[in-house]
Amino acid sequence: MNKRIVEIDLGTRSVRVQDAPQDLLRLGGRALTSTLIHRETDPLCHPLSADNLLVIAPGLLAGTGLSSANRLSAGAKSPLTGGIKESNSGGTAAFKLARLGIQALKIRGAARRGACVGLHVSRESVRIEDLGFAAGLGTYAAADALRARFGRQVGLILAGPAGEMRMSTACLNVTDPQGEPCRNLGRGGLGAVAGAKGLKAVIIDDSGAEFQPFDLPATKELMKRFATALKEHPVTGEKFPKYGTAMTVMNVNKLGGLPTRNFSAGSFEGAESLSGETLYQTISSRGGEYAHGCMPGCVIRCSNKYVDAQGRPLVGSLDFETIGLLGANLGIGELDQVAELNKLCNDLGVDSMETGVALGVLAEAGVFRFGDFPRVRALIEEIGQGTPLGRLIGSGSVACGRAYGVTRVPAVKGQGMAAYDPRAIKGMGLTYALSPMGADHTAGNAITLAVDPMDPRVQLEPVRDLHLKYTLMDSLGLCIFTGRVSLANPELIEQAVRAVTGWQASFAELLELGKEVLRREREFNRSAGFTAAHDRLPEFMLREALPPNNGVFDVPQADLDRFYDFET
Amino acid sequence: MNKRIVEIDLGTRSVRVQDAPQDLLRLGGRALTSTLIHRETDPLCHPLSADNLLVIAPGLLAGTGLSSANRLSAGAKSPLTGGIKESNSGGTAAFKLARLGIQALKIRGAARRGACVGLHVSRESVRIEDLGFAAGLGTYAAADALRARFGRQVGLILAGPAGEMRMSTACLNVTDPQGEPCRNLGRGGLGAVAGAKGLKAVIIDDSGAEFQPFDLPATKELMKRFATALKEHPVTGEKFPKYGTAMTVMNVNKLGGLPTRNFSAGSFEGAESLSGETLYQTISSRGGEYAHGCMPGCVIRCSNKYVDAQGRPLVGSLDFETIGLLGANLGIGELDQVAELNKLCNDLGVDSMETGVALGVLAEAGVFRFGDFPRVRALIEEIGQGTPLGRLIGSGSVACGRAYGVTRVPAVKGQGMAAYDPRAIKGMGLTYALSPMGADHTAGNAITLAVDPMDPRVQLEPVRDLHLKYTLMDSLGLCIFTGRVSLANPELIEQAVRAVTGWQASFAELLELGKEVLRREREFNRSAGFTAAHDRLPEFMLREALPPNNGVFDVPQADLDRFYDFET
Repeated sequence: MNKRIVEIDLGTRSVRVQDAPQDLLRLGGRALTSTLIHRETDPLCHPLSADNLLVIAPGLLAGTGLSSANRLSAGAKSPLTGGIKESNSGGTAAFKLARLGIQALKIRGAARRGACVGLHVSRESVRIEDLGFAAGLGTYAAADALRARFGRQVGLILAGPAGEMRMSTACLNVTDPQGEPCRNLGRGGLGAVAGAKGLKAVIIDDSGAEFQPFDLPATKELMKRFATALKEHPVTGEKFPKYGTAMTVMNVNKLGGLPTRNFSAGSFEGAESLSGETLYQTISSRGGEYAHGCMPGCVIRCSNKYVDAQGRPLVGSLDFETIGLLGANLGIGELDQVAELNKLCNDLGVDSMETGVALGVLAEAGVFRFGDFPRVRALIEEIGQGTPLGRLIGSGSVACGRAYGVTRVPAVKGQGMAAYDPRAIKGMGLTYALSPMGADHTAGNAITLAVDPMDPRVQLEPVRDLHLKYTLMDSLGLCIFTGRVSLANPELIEQAVRAVTGWQASFAELLELGKEVLRREREFNRSAGFTAAHDRLPEFMLREALPPNNGVFDVPQADLDRFYDFET
Repeated sequence: MNKRIVEIDLGTRSVRVQDAPQDLLRLGGRALTSTLIHRETDPLCHPLSADNLLVIAPGLLAGTGLSSANRLSAGAKSPLTGGIKESNSGGTAAFKLARLGIQALKIRGAARRGACVGLHVSRESVRIEDLGFAAGLGTYAAADALRARFGRQVGLILAGPAGEMRMSTACLNVTDPQGEPCRNLGRGGLGAVAGAKGLKAVIIDDSGAEFQPFDLPATKELMKRFATALKEHPVTGEKFPKYGTAMTVMNVNKLGGLPTRNFSAGSFEGAESLSGETLYQTISSRGGEYAHGCMPGCVIRCSNKYVDAQGRPLVGSLDFETIGLLGANLGIGELDQVAELNKLCNDLGVDSMETGVALGVLAEAGVFRFGDFPRVRALIEEIGQGTPLGRLIGSGSVACGRAYGVTRVPAVKGQGMAAYDPRAIKGMGLTYALSPMGADHTAGNAITLAVDPMDPRVQLEPVRDLHLKYTLMDSLGLCIFTGRVSLANPELIEQAVRAVTGWQASFAELLELGKEVLRREREFNRSAGFTAAHDRLPEFMLREALPPNNGVFDVPQADLDRFYDFET
């Protein structure tokens, strides 16, 4: 089956399906979204203009049962950062798109103002559907309505009310195997790009489709071998399934890097009650689900279905970054409360991470008191109501800092940081500063490095190495949580690429692809107006010591400036 | 009398008065503010941090009765643009500072959070005063309170509530000869820089002081000659005194460049009722004052004291940019209404121009209907109340556009445009795009050029020439409205510089100073992260034709990129 690229213009309502050109065949996920945006999008266009190309692409390995290899990428010029953006997630969409032979959806143009449309993708056709009935619906209700209309088996990519209102922190939600719209293309406002186009949903019906890997027997053999290796590793085989990503809470808290009350401390007195252990005990005692897989075939199963005290579903999945940023960072120490806020964010289609950072800034400004859960919930509800304050929160942490005159805004390139304070985990500071995407931890999750996190002199080389590897993984659609196994045994990655696609590449060659993608992203950003001045952490983190370790971010500026030495 | 530079640290409450060093002696106004900021301010500092140096400097020629030569500059890293900012105004402050022999006030540090302090400058001393009694007061009440405390004769530079709340569009107000705080260092948020330092006011008492020009007889002779020349010119001698800057309304409307309803049209059906003629008739029939001088010695006297139907003072002075942006741009066609809004902005200490642009964006977003005066007034009042929407408006047009997902935001480098649409007056588009300050018309007021405003090919050279000349005038403290006389007879400028300061410079040498200042400003901006991508107009102005002329901004990009050829 040839891979196909679908070009959609929502303005002219045209759909063109084409075989993928030769020069794009080896690109998937982030490599493909970033390459297409680099080629086709005017770096000076307004992110909410009809010209901003929205690209949705499954990872290169997607479509098989290979564990943790069915991630979906979406990319565009970001309304939040003004630079290039790729965001990726689990869920079923990448698997289904790959089974349909679709390498990418390229969406441009905009439906007439006020229209609400969807893109229906099946074996028979790709067509534009009017979805007036779903306009304004939260993602949970929208998912129900769309399944009622298009069938229970469809996979969905959804914009929520925040996206429809074109807020810079709106995400796209992807449904998981149970159909819950909780796997988010979270960061950078891609939901607003969709919303500005009038695009409410992509509906993927893969009935009757089948994915044909290049070498089926080799793929099957590798699936088993990879699954076994992941299950045998103590982290991917035991800790992740049991505690989920929340296993990180106590670790980061111990390192003094858990953002607490707008990044004013690095350890939180309520950390224990937010921990992976507490999460596990709570879920298991209430009859929720841990060891849940967010995508087909995953054996790590770090996801969960969090339930309330009565055992009723609250949100799936409750994860570390949200726990850190809507929890500790707001002085909230109850998982039930964080879960409720997370569900609200998911339903509105707004990035729970950026929301946490933005609210932290507002608490510092005195808009509410840290720890005031009812007020936090009401403020997030205001996002959905589109009140001025809700729109301000939906504009992100930097906008909130500007409106309230707050200088302590933990953001880079306009995007709020993840739940690791870079003054305690300095490699993460490099990642935040240097990723073309803004302060994304997933660009190079330095918490996994075997170096002293407080030593400013030992971060550069290993973090750069991580950036290349993660860029590759984002392109393959391979979850970064496999890293302890896949990156430790790169022949597994080589074999997977060969078995699934036929491309016989050495790992070194594959990393060159990562380099090339980063080069393209950086070039786009330069044309959009980014310079080394944007590859910096905010001033206060260079000056203000973070308790309890009392570190500042002191990685030499020269290290920041030679991070991308490979560009030249 | 030696010129002195006063260094103030509001954090340590230290004041150091020093003779101006040799290498700064020929710098005044913008040349001095920009040079000091270029030398001493970290381009990556947060604009609201204690490190952001706020420089206040009278123009080089200030202190004498030379007409229109007593303008005051203030500069800092801008909270609105993130780049270097110089803003200048009339009023009495520059005259008084110069008489006190003060070349610049360099203000850094910040008073403790919540404190409200002032800087009292007199022949005896420069000292920091606690001004708790003035905290939170509007600029009119604050001016009264400060005069009651420090004497009726003082000149004032004031931050209003918007500055105290650290809003990015807060201005600094300078009192005019009658003590009204209506001459604004308007653009770029310098009031927020002051507010972040806890600085409410600079109080200037020049009792007993006298300015000694280098050559008193020559200065006196020149004063007369310059005044005569200004009076004899039909624009500076007749039109400006009678109609004020509002004389521009009908001209710009006729050119199809009067921003109407968020820059969606270039002519306004209510233009006539906003015109200079209407202004003159209204003021004169009600017993207000036209031909008012905003600063000591000015013979142009383009300022006015606008009064209501009962003859009670409403605002002084009602000027073109405000009429365009709070009037036509919001669909408001009544001078009385614009005057009321202007007064409100002055009292809050917020830039009336940026407020007009921001409100235009909000009207486009549907927050209110164009022309709804009571709602506009209520929204400006919200700035003072610090409501979320008020703070958003106080954050400027770009922030409003982001929060409400509006792509039509007429701004460059984060700052809203003046009241000339660059699709009809294309030279102004060059000025907006290329000024290091953002979309300032005063960087090169292209409306004065004798070229076809719609011809994209003839703008570059004359606009560049204007930028150099205006940078010089901003440094001399010479009002740009003298241009028709002073720039037409540059020997007058040479003679003024020699008579007042002793510097025997040719006009060509003086223009080199303008170049050097622009170079320094551009270098600061580059270090702060600005590139050619920021020297562009917003996308919609390149695409969307502006009625009635139906022009787009089509000055070639290559022209934009070679504007600063002299840099290399």
